[in-house]
Amino acid sequence: MTHIFQTPPCVTSFAAVGGSSEGEGNLGNYFDFISDDEYFGKTTYEQAESELQRQTAALALQKAGLNMSDIDLILGGDLLNQCVATSFAHRESQVSIMGLYSACSTFTESLILSAALTSSGLAKRVLGITSSHFYSAERQYRMPIEYGGQRAPTTQRTATASGAFITEQGEKAPYIKGFTVGRIVDMGVTDAANMGAAMAPAAYDTITRFFSDTGLHLNDFDKIVTGDLGEIGSQLLYKLFARDGVDISAKHLDCGKLLYDPQRQDVHSGGSGCGCVASVSCAYLLPKLQSGESKNILLAATGALMSPTMTQQGESIPAISHAVWLSHSS
Amino acid sequence: MTHIFQTPPCVTSFAAVGGSSEGEGNLGNYFDFISDDEYFGKTTYEQAESELQRQTAALALQKAGLNMSDIDLILGGDLLNQCVATSFAHRESQVSIMGLYSACSTFTESLILSAALTSSGLAKRVLGITSSHFYSAERQYRMPIEYGGQRAPTTQRTATASGAFITEQGEKAPYIKGFTVGRIVDMGVTDAANMGAAMAPAAYDTITRFFSDTGLHLNDFDKIVTGDLGEIGSQLLYKLFARDGVDISAKHLDCGKLLYDPQRQDVHSGGSGCGCVASVSCAYLLPKLQSGESKNILLAATGALMSPTMTQQGESIPAISHAVWLSHSS
Repeated sequence: MTHIFQTPPCVTSFAAVGGSSEGEGNLGNYFDFISDDEYFGKTTYEQAESELQRQTAALALQKAGLNMSDIDLILGGDLLNQCVATSFAHRESQVSIMGLYSACSTFTESLILSAALTSSGLAKRVLGITSSHFYSAERQYRMPIEYGGQRAPTTQRTATASGAFITEQGEKAPYIKGFTVGRIVDMGVTDAANMGAAMAPAAYDTITRFFSDTGLHLNDFDKIVTGDLGEIGSQLLYKLFARDGVDISAKHLDCGKLLYDPQRQDVHSGGSGCGCVASVSCAYLLPKLQSGESKNILLAATGALMSPTMTQQGESIPAISHAVWLSHSS
Repeated sequence: MTHIFQTPPCVTSFAAVGGSSEGEGNLGNYFDFISDDEYFGKTTYEQAESELQRQTAALALQKAGLNMSDIDLILGGDLLNQCVATSFAHRESQVSIMGLYSACSTFTESLILSAALTSSGLAKRVLGITSSHFYSAERQYRMPIEYGGQRAPTTQRTATASGAFITEQGEKAPYIKGFTVGRIVDMGVTDAANMGAAMAPAAYDTITRFFSDTGLHLNDFDKIVTGDLGEIGSQLLYKLFARDGVDISAKHLDCGKLLYDPQRQDVHSGGSGCGCVASVSCAYLLPKLQSGESKNILLAATGALMSPTMTQQGESIPAISHAVWLSHSS
């Protein structure tokens, strides 16, 4: 499903918060706030992730001069079982909320739905937000970090980060010009330590469908940005496009590769998680689109729709990618 | 956030599938299909739940004379970690899909978003679906059923069931006339074996906001139907309304109470799960609205937004309820 808005809604505010590793990465200076305390003042990592989300939402509101009561609807999600980081973060908000789950592509799902609901006038102002936390994700998906398990070279580091944005009708860059909702692509990858490989075909499927559905071309965009394919997934994406005779490597950025500095940081294939694409978008991409330094970006977040239970049952990893066309001009 | 559609979209098809306990319940004869095999021909309960969802979607399409390729978008969700019942169910569908998570209130979230996207013309035809499975839920949330643990009298039985519907613009009853998106309500209940008590205040909050936002009254509706408060939660709901001098007991139905026959079935406080409200709606409520036997129903599904991890950390249970106004006339 692809749609181009006749009157594109705009992203009027955005904020990104990260942990210390994210602060030490390539984009550390672009974040609105870096917390040196991985607990964010709380006593468990799950509570920490909720607090991270709460602080990120508060910053996005503060930068817009708004209060939570000015928001009609929160569209949020995260990677924790039953999306509890999001539920507990906004427990006291008194604002209507809908939970989303599309793994690491939840961020663009929230962009798409916020644009759909504001452009149609159903909601005046929507707050979109996603998060992830390295320590809460490690113990849920793999092992508690205290166990000291060795990680495979193909793994990616789940970002301790969150990105929040506010969508409404208006005339203020950046704009959400259109989108393609992803479909599930499963090429049979069963290695849960190599998500980039599982997700690259989904990104390829959605990006090519966006171009064929809209008639737009690679040259209409400054950058094609994927969510978190990391180093290995990005190389696979180039190979998939190369089969069509297309070299996207010069146009391509990946949030998982942008976030950390692999020369200095032990992140293997790069960053990942609901908070990776969210924070890179809100810290780095949206400001460039706001200032006009970037004119058009196609943001294709990617998600691996498995669970540890399905991996233990020998299932392959279904993946998805939702793409959003972000632009400096309406 | 409350909205009344000027031109309400309609639900053009719906289907419900259940397991053997659901077949033996009050509504057994209303289901489109009852499977006597709890595995649905698969080898694990998680695969079974995906197969249950796949069969329910296929029936909703078949009843409308449609194929999966006629659908623009699937909006689906379930209770399993990372919503894998939904992802694996639609892995081969080749249809755009967005995952939703709002616990047992995901069904009305999908009704609301499907109505929003079709009424605004962004999607022509949306398939909404949710499911739950008694055995996959028991081992994820509590204990594998083989353990034989005793259940508290306040517990509810997670339904092995799924409900699917198709929303589009048109003139065919039933219609989705409006909705209220819930906000999170947490009254401090910490007993994960008493979800009805945790969710009743959320249902009260959303139902009263729907009436105050729309100016409609209890008498405008044949029935006010909650998702799965069960026996205990329903009694609490009556007490909350009684504080306002309102007796809703004569107008109220609860899907968790409707699904099973407590005289014959060992279901304690009633049914629950993403599939309970979905299957009761698609098997029992939507047909009544289609035929005109019911004119107007306010369906307020309820969800408990906790996880076993948060319960272990001593947290109380945040709850939510999304309400949809379903009507025989536009």
